[in-house]
Amino acid sequence: ELVSALEQANTSPLAGNWQGKRVLITAGPTREAIDPVRYLSNHSSGKMGFALAAAAAAAGAKVQLIAGPVALATPEGVERIDVQSAQQMHAAVMSHASSADVFIGCAAVADYRVAEVAEQKMKKTKQDELQLTLVKNPDIIADVAALQYQRPFTVGFAAETQDVARYAKDKLSRKKLDLICANDVANPAQGFNSEQNAIVAYWPGGELSLPLQPKTHLALAILQLIEQRLAQQQQLT
Amino acid sequence: ELVSALEQANTSPLAGNWQGKRVLITAGPTREAIDPVRYLSNHSSGKMGFALAAAAAAAGAKVQLIAGPVALATPEGVERIDVQSAQQMHAAVMSHASSADVFIGCAAVADYRVAEVAEQKMKKTKQDELQLTLVKNPDIIADVAALQYQRPFTVGFAAETQDVARYAKDKLSRKKLDLICANDVANPAQGFNSEQNAIVAYWPGGELSLPLQPKTHLALAILQLIEQRLAQQQQLT
Repeated sequence: ELVSALEQANTSPLAGNWQGKRVLITAGPTREAIDPVRYLSNHSSGKMGFALAAAAAAAGAKVQLIAGPVALATPEGVERIDVQSAQQMHAAVMSHASSADVFIGCAAVADYRVAEVAEQKMKKTKQDELQLTLVKNPDIIADVAALQYQRPFTVGFAAETQDVARYAKDKLSRKKLDLICANDVANPAQGFNSEQNAIVAYWPGGELSLPLQPKTHLALAILQLIEQRLAQQQQLT
Repeated sequence: ELVSALEQANTSPLAGNWQGKRVLITAGPTREAIDPVRYLSNHSSGKMGFALAAAAAAAGAKVQLIAGPVALATPEGVERIDVQSAQQMHAAVMSHASSADVFIGCAAVADYRVAEVAEQKMKKTKQDELQLTLVKNPDIIADVAALQYQRPFTVGFAAETQDVARYAKDKLSRKKLDLICANDVANPAQGFNSEQNAIVAYWPGGELSLPLQPKTHLALAILQLIEQRLAQQQQLT
């Protein structure tokens, strides 16, 4: 409601630094086909990524939203590209990343896909056990952060169930991200299908805790933090 | 719209044989957890099962609907029980099956679940391949059809991508069902997330083809067929 009220007033609590900025966002889960009727997936409603897209568009940014299978309406003024698998999401992101000023990888991308997708529905066999061979998917956020030419400011998300801070900081430095938003999905009040979320944001040399609040509010706080970090990076260069 | 119009008129094109009948229906997919963030599932919107539940309730039946994770509203007058996994769906069905006159297994139940569910989010390893060991889930429809005491009239569904008639007839006889509704999900116009479906119904000694039509209409045709089959069985005994 906040975002649509802001849209009507044609203003935004954000500092206006988003006017003309190009923002690329991923949201939702990916689905990795096993056969025509079965798939592997991750829990993700897409709400956090869609809230970020809505808030950035309301603040004047040109937003492209690459969405996995979710049951959400496209925010006003946002260009949406629908994908299913991690490989499709990777291809869509890599073809748009170099023209973005900011990339926010909010999607819950499947780390692994099935090695061989069956063309026809697999029949249940007499065997009690079945082995499914999985292979690694491309690492979208690491590939964006590793761009040598026209690399956008790169923001990741880490959904963890334990050692949240440690895993998030490790992911930040290992994948050379500019910012990472960590959330503890073991807490049912936040994350996944909830309307609310709490995160801790980490960047090289700093961190900020954003307490439990509606995802629409959290989106504004995250965009404000990105503005600040971008401004600081530009002062340094 | 047809069903709600009928509800308002407090009448139904069904012969009225459903007044006081107890109908148990499963709908939607099941989700088999891999860890707290990942799962295996099947494509299924739940629309066919929910349409059957709405039509049966509108015709005067007492309907219990056991639903996997779907984004659908509960039809008026229907008692809904939400479940996630095949094991949960099996337990819910077996505790209600003996008090039902008719059981319709419309859910897309996962044949296999993960052998060992991880309590914490599994970390991506350096290995390029990962083996996932799956074990067979209980066979809900076969277990209902095998009930020796207070066995309901048992209706199954078969969603196939090839040899649809052969697989459906085999499932009918092997699992000792009273009726099976087969649909070819390789055709994108029908099945899964579509509002329409076409099925061929098979029973011991007969078959009926129901062409492509809204799932709400198809639900009425399937219930009419069940009525006829029930009447014939009762004449024979």
